[in-house]
Amino acid sequence: MSETPPFPLRLPPLLVERAVSAALEEDLGLAGDVTTDAIIPADAKSEAAIVARQAGVVAGLDLAEAAFRALDPATRFTRIVDDGGKVAEGGTIAEISAKTRALLTGERTALNFLGRLSGIATLTAAFVAAVEGTGARIACTRKTTPGLRALEKYAVRTGGGVNHRFGLYDAVLVKDNHIAAAGGLANALRSLRARSGHLVRIEVEVDTLDQLEEALRFPIDAVLLDNMDVGTLKKAVKLVAGRVVTEASGGVALETVREIASTGVEVISVGALTHSPRNLDSSLEWEA
Amino acid sequence: MSETPPFPLRLPPLLVERAVSAALEEDLGLAGDVTTDAIIPADAKSEAAIVARQAGVVAGLDLAEAAFRALDPATRFTRIVDDGGKVAEGGTIAEISAKTRALLTGERTALNFLGRLSGIATLTAAFVAAVEGTGARIACTRKTTPGLRALEKYAVRTGGGVNHRFGLYDAVLVKDNHIAAAGGLANALRSLRARSGHLVRIEVEVDTLDQLEEALRFPIDAVLLDNMDVGTLKKAVKLVAGRVVTEASGGVALETVREIASTGVEVISVGALTHSPRNLDSSLEWEA
Amino acid sequence: MSETPPFPLRLPPLLVERAVSAALEEDLGLAGDVTTDAIIPADAKSEAAIVARQAGVVAGLDLAEAAFRALDPATRFTRIVDDGGKVAEGGTIAEISAKTRALLTGERTALNFLGRLSGIATLTAAFVAAVEGTGARIACTRKTTPGLRALEKYAVRTGGGVNHRFGLYDAVLVKDNHIAAAGGLANALRSLRARSGHLVRIEVEVDTLDQLEEALRFPIDAVLLDNMDVGTLKKAVKLVAGRVVTEASGGVALETVREIASTGVEVISVGALTHSPRNLDSSLEWEA
Amino acid sequence: MSETPPFPLRLPPLLVERAVSAALEEDLGLAGDVTTDAIIPADAKSEAAIVARQAGVVAGLDLAEAAFRALDPATRFTRIVDDGGKVAEGGTIAEISAKTRALLTGERTALNFLGRLSGIATLTAAFVAAVEGTGARIACTRKTTPGLRALEKYAVRTGGGVNHRFGLYDAVLVKDNHIAAAGGLANALRSLRARSGHLVRIEVEVDTLDQLEEALRFPIDAVLLDNMDVGTLKKAVKLVAGRVVTEASGGVALETVREIASTGVEVISVGALTHSPRNLDSSLEWEA
Amino acid sequence: MSETPPFPLRLPPLLVERAVSAALEEDLGLAGDVTTDAIIPADAKSEAAIVARQAGVVAGLDLAEAAFRALDPATRFTRIVDDGGKVAEGGTIAEISAKTRALLTGERTALNFLGRLSGIATLTAAFVAAVEGTGARIACTRKTTPGLRALEKYAVRTGGGVNHRFGLYDAVLVKDNHIAAAGGLANALRSLRARSGHLVRIEVEVDTLDQLEEALRFPIDAVLLDNMDVGTLKKAVKLVAGRVVTEASGGVALETVREIASTGVEVISVGALTHSPRNLDSSLEWEA
Amino acid sequence: MSETPPFPLRLPPLLVERAVSAALEEDLGLAGDVTTDAIIPADAKSEAAIVARQAGVVAGLDLAEAAFRALDPATRFTRIVDDGGKVAEGGTIAEISAKTRALLTGERTALNFLGRLSGIATLTAAFVAAVEGTGARIACTRKTTPGLRALEKYAVRTGGGVNHRFGLYDAVLVKDNHIAAAGGLANALRSLRARSGHLVRIEVEVDTLDQLEEALRFPIDAVLLDNMDVGTLKKAVKLVAGRVVTEASGGVALETVREIASTGVEVISVGALTHSPRNLDSSLEWEA
Repeated sequence: MSETPPFPLRLPPLLVERAVSAALEEDLGLAGDVTTDAIIPADAKSEAAIVARQAGVVAGLDLAEAAFRALDPATRFTRIVDDGGKVAEGGTIAEISAKTRALLTGERTALNFLGRLSGIATLTAAFVAAVEGTGARIACTRKTTPGLRALEKYAVRTGGGVNHRFGLYDAVLVKDNHIAAAGGLANALRSLRARSGHLVRIEVEVDTLDQLEEALRFPIDAVLLDNMDVGTLKKAVKLVAGRVVTEASGGVALETVREIASTGVEVISVGALTHSPRNLDSSLEWEA
Repeated sequence: MSETPPFPLRLPPLLVERAVSAALEEDLGLAGDVTTDAIIPADAKSEAAIVARQAGVVAGLDLAEAAFRALDPATRFTRIVDDGGKVAEGGTIAEISAKTRALLTGERTALNFLGRLSGIATLTAAFVAAVEGTGARIACTRKTTPGLRALEKYAVRTGGGVNHRFGLYDAVLVKDNHIAAAGGLANALRSLRARSGHLVRIEVEVDTLDQLEEALRFPIDAVLLDNMDVGTLKKAVKLVAGRVVTEASGGVALETVREIASTGVEVISVGALTHSPRNLDSSLEWEA
Repeated sequence: MSETPPFPLRLPPLLVERAVSAALEEDLGLAGDVTTDAIIPADAKSEAAIVARQAGVVAGLDLAEAAFRALDPATRFTRIVDDGGKVAEGGTIAEISAKTRALLTGERTALNFLGRLSGIATLTAAFVAAVEGTGARIACTRKTTPGLRALEKYAVRTGGGVNHRFGLYDAVLVKDNHIAAAGGLANALRSLRARSGHLVRIEVEVDTLDQLEEALRFPIDAVLLDNMDVGTLKKAVKLVAGRVVTEASGGVALETVREIASTGVEVISVGALTHSPRNLDSSLEWEA
Repeated sequence: MSETPPFPLRLPPLLVERAVSAALEEDLGLAGDVTTDAIIPADAKSEAAIVARQAGVVAGLDLAEAAFRALDPATRFTRIVDDGGKVAEGGTIAEISAKTRALLTGERTALNFLGRLSGIATLTAAFVAAVEGTGARIACTRKTTPGLRALEKYAVRTGGGVNHRFGLYDAVLVKDNHIAAAGGLANALRSLRARSGHLVRIEVEVDTLDQLEEALRFPIDAVLLDNMDVGTLKKAVKLVAGRVVTEASGGVALETVREIASTGVEVISVGALTHSPRNLDSSLEWEA
Repeated sequence: MSETPPFPLRLPPLLVERAVSAALEEDLGLAGDVTTDAIIPADAKSEAAIVARQAGVVAGLDLAEAAFRALDPATRFTRIVDDGGKVAEGGTIAEISAKTRALLTGERTALNFLGRLSGIATLTAAFVAAVEGTGARIACTRKTTPGLRALEKYAVRTGGGVNHRFGLYDAVLVKDNHIAAAGGLANALRSLRARSGHLVRIEVEVDTLDQLEEALRFPIDAVLLDNMDVGTLKKAVKLVAGRVVTEASGGVALETVREIASTGVEVISVGALTHSPRNLDSSLEWEA
Repeated sequence: MSETPPFPLRLPPLLVERAVSAALEEDLGLAGDVTTDAIIPADAKSEAAIVARQAGVVAGLDLAEAAFRALDPATRFTRIVDDGGKVAEGGTIAEISAKTRALLTGERTALNFLGRLSGIATLTAAFVAAVEGTGARIACTRKTTPGLRALEKYAVRTGGGVNHRFGLYDAVLVKDNHIAAAGGLANALRSLRARSGHLVRIEVEVDTLDQLEEALRFPIDAVLLDNMDVGTLKKAVKLVAGRVVTEASGGVALETVREIASTGVEVISVGALTHSPRNLDSSLEWEA
């Protein structure tokens, strides 16, 4: 039993190609697949299916497909569940027809991408489900695996979450140490306004309601309410009164996220989505 | 309370440099750290410490240090606990003195590397501790994060584990599909012996004791006993009788690993070490 | 007569290194500087100065310095005018002491970077001066030289301008064709809001006051008033009444920019800053 | 009204692919085209035309085509005017049929390449036209945009000019400082002859007729007559009397180039061709 | 007269693509093939054949084919003798139909790869033939051309030899200096066993029979008998008595290899296979 | 007994760094030197010398030094014979003091570069010596190892030879097939002159005296006299009478080169210099 959404997201093709080709190089080295190349005739063909060993949300099929296609351009890769769709335990995600060598050699690379991205999408979907109806959105952070940020942020979107900034370059987030170094928030924001274009949003991190009041005196776009308990969060949301976007952050868990959402914050950011997901377990099952 | 082993392992410097520089590019993009660069004077200096929020085994300090050093070559980075050492909750891992900009801009990259590798080392150390005294060794698999295999395999060694093959290129592992495609194990091994050099080891994966008996008729180096229950494993080890290396694999968990080790297998490989570790949580604490 | 601002901007060092090394490879090929290497002894040293042949605003000294330093790590490079500073015709920008070979081989690469970036900074400064006192800010566009966007956007900031979005990835700009394809602005914005994080700003391009009125019904951040005459711009600004950021765009010239600014628009974007600047002419003058 | 020459030049395909893919990465970053991807269905198709807003000589169509094709391999790209052809103001350069996403996402990259290269070709053609009938040839210099030298030198050829050396590696140009450091031209040439192969040409830069006379005593291939006024140039050409190639250089403008050509010099090199061209303005017009 | 084996080896396609594209860039630079591009119309087609000027064993056809295909994707490349096959003097190796430009421009790159790899395969085959019937196998070493190791090791396999380790990473070889630094072989092996996985083989280099006896006390996989004369080798093989793999190394020549093989050693490694082969001379013959 | 010339040539540092770093990656893979890293303490230091096992001309010391320095930045590398100098059998080329690990790990990479480049320099020097006094110069061809052209051409210069063109991009060489395709030499040269800059030399390959006479009717720079016997060569040189450079090519051997030189040709190009040199054998000798 599985369900695919009508308009799946897609990764930029250039990123897919680069990531897959780096992963295959890593696995093949200079000698290639010494087992397969010695045993399997170059022209043998086989059919196999990617089967989920756990239920979850699928993400990363472009990468899995590209891994096999890089090894056999004539690969046929049929998606039973597309990115963003749900797969049940034991359900088939995709059917593949390709050279036997390509299947054997590409299997681990394909499953490594699929397992990690689907793991993130599945965890994100669990958080999204937990806050359903509250209006809160689940966001990831910059706590991503080095080198895989674009893929992991895509997996978060696939699971129904939204992305926080991609890096230090595409939005401003002012923290304690910035404020201290600038000699106060007013100074920090003055410098920022002088140097930032009109399409850059500015968010300020606050730890207390006092800091929040201070921040709200300035023309900012969002506040990051860091590590506040639920009672304080409620007061913070009330204080903001819709003037800027509110984001809660810090130690959010699946068990606590709904209560946090019930405070009325608009965005809840969860580092664990990308730093500690469990891989979605899947395997390549060969046709008898 | 922390403890550092006398001869820490080291990552090859070229790998460190390449990984860190890719991670910084990913985080800085073309515009750089738009918050920090607008607010913090270029010459301001600060001191900070990397502090563990959980107890664990440290791995990845070369990467963390390189992240700050890439942004400020004059960074002083003092290790309180080196790679392979244990850090307690709240313990200090390293002290850093550098330009304030380097600290703010490099923080996330450094902690992302340190968190992931220390998470792997910590999980590995837990498995190693669980089998202490049995003689069994804990090994990782090829279920690694694409692009980070060298770093993750290093983290496994740092945690006291050993590495399985690095890729498809550095050892032979014959699986069901190879045997089927070759028309039997005899054929498969004949092809392999003809094409493999004398420094390549050959391991054969078996699912049953019958397959194991078949495999032991040939001059192989190791058998991978896949998904066998403990009773079958014991029989397998007895059957092998020290003639080849024995490896148990498949769904190994921290709760079950000691019982598996008690069967006498020499190597137990655990995919979860690298595909689903939890990051070791740490933070950068600034000096008041 | 020249003037340096107190806190010069800086390019990210990784970008400087990569750009300079690509440029030197382009100029040196596989054979190197066949003239210099055959004639000049490896250890000869010289002193020279970079002198402006025209007045202008300096930008790109990090690149110029890195070009010489890549060829002679012991290069001494003293800035008389730093990035963002004004240099008069005939004024000295920097003094250099290095191996003669490094000076001869690096000269063109250094001056090519410096000439282009200073040309952009100088043109930007002219636009900024033209609107002085009106409150309008001068912005660049994505009409940059392929491969040099980060450097050229930096030069715009150095000249006193601000940056529009860096690429298609860091802000939303909805144009006619997007609206048509989505079946109306409402649909387009609904899709965007569903998929964009809370730190992404949304700007909508409008050609007429009717379109502007339509756009202002939605929660957007900015409007790009495209190719409107001054009379229409005035009406547009009045209509917006400070609710969103206003940007004027389209065929802006140095002669017309002040009149445009006088309409009250907050941002004026000028493609010519980066697509058709004149290089700032400078030369390397050798000490007698 | 436009005219295409019978045998258009072509850029090496490997350079086209690399340049376009770098430019697309620069514009797409890790998140891709966040506007288009959220609004436009993946399979929507559209037709559009590249239309010139100014008259000029076209150059760079391979790059423009490759930009769209990288985003949609099934792109149909029909050239109405090929590289080297003239397009009138308002004339159509090419017609494109592709996925709507590819058109929207690739537009700026395609036009940035086309605008810069056509700008150079157009300016070159103007210089070539100005010297028509005199026998002089128009050459570019090494004052090119870092990273784009191959593309810009191609644009010069497309506009009817010829290329000076590509870099420091493919021909010898002896300047004042070389001669001074070598202790005279005789020494410099002796070193050069000892180390240069028989397919490397040697040109010597001279500022005065005395230096020219000195240079002509040696077996060189060409002289660069630097910054000489027209009267001096005439005398220089007469002095050379066809023994070596003569090149005039230094501050050549469209207004002065014909007079310079009338002196009989064979080559006139013009830095402005590549360092300060105006982009040829063009736009993507969508079919109603 | 030529002969092709039934199952030719193949290089990993990613390696082929990268090697060929680097070689073409090296030969084409930024200006391309200035002779061919100026003279030959872009659409002209020709037919040609690669003809051997010497008898030998062919290796590297994937690279040769890829060189032409990179320049003309519609190239037809028909192998008369495939990799591993023997070609007689004057025999045709392959027939090619492609654009004339692709043939002229790609010729040298294709022949450079083919000549070097076939030279290695031919030399290897000569050594293999010289030991025929003795049971000894011919192995290469790490004395390969920097950057071409994978290709050269492939050529050795193609000629009937086997590969020693690919690098320092895929097997352990303990030499004198390791033993000295560790304070004896026992210590060295203890460290190795602690840190090496179960799929890494360990070989120890010995110069004398005493060292050999010492080495055989430990659980190692192979011994490298370095620079022993034939008499000593015989004693060494007898001493080993099949317990570990025996490898002879050091100054092996075609004239001496059979005598060495007759000692009963299992592997003979020959540095000259890759460090000093003679290119197999071949040429591109054009159809009249 | 060895001799170093006063002004050694140098490879461009960027090429050295890139080549060495690629070679080290090739040898170290992802796991590094598994033997050395397990056995040798990180801080142990040693001294060693590079000793020649054959007499020859040294080339490539920058690469050898860089290999050790990449592994230990504090390496002291003292050249006893510099590039271009002669070393006797058993003579010391360089003395090295570095970390023991760096010496063990870098040894093969350093010697592979040094062996190949010195082999080329030594062979070149033998050809140069063979023609001493005749006035002929020895040149290499484009028959180089893919990826190493710059290094190998440098080795030729170091041995006293000169370089032919570096690639297809830096000089024109018109061959039979070009002439045939163009419909005659006149057409071919007309196209070339129209498209080539004034610093590009044109050489024409001729097989017969008739073709030579034809070629000399045109304004070309050099003729390549291909595969002519000595008698024909003499006539060719006489026919040319100094009007253009003469180059002999085709099957030149050390035994025949002097006779060829005696015909009066100015340049003799020898493919074997780079396609089939024997490595200069050297080894790393450790201090007792």
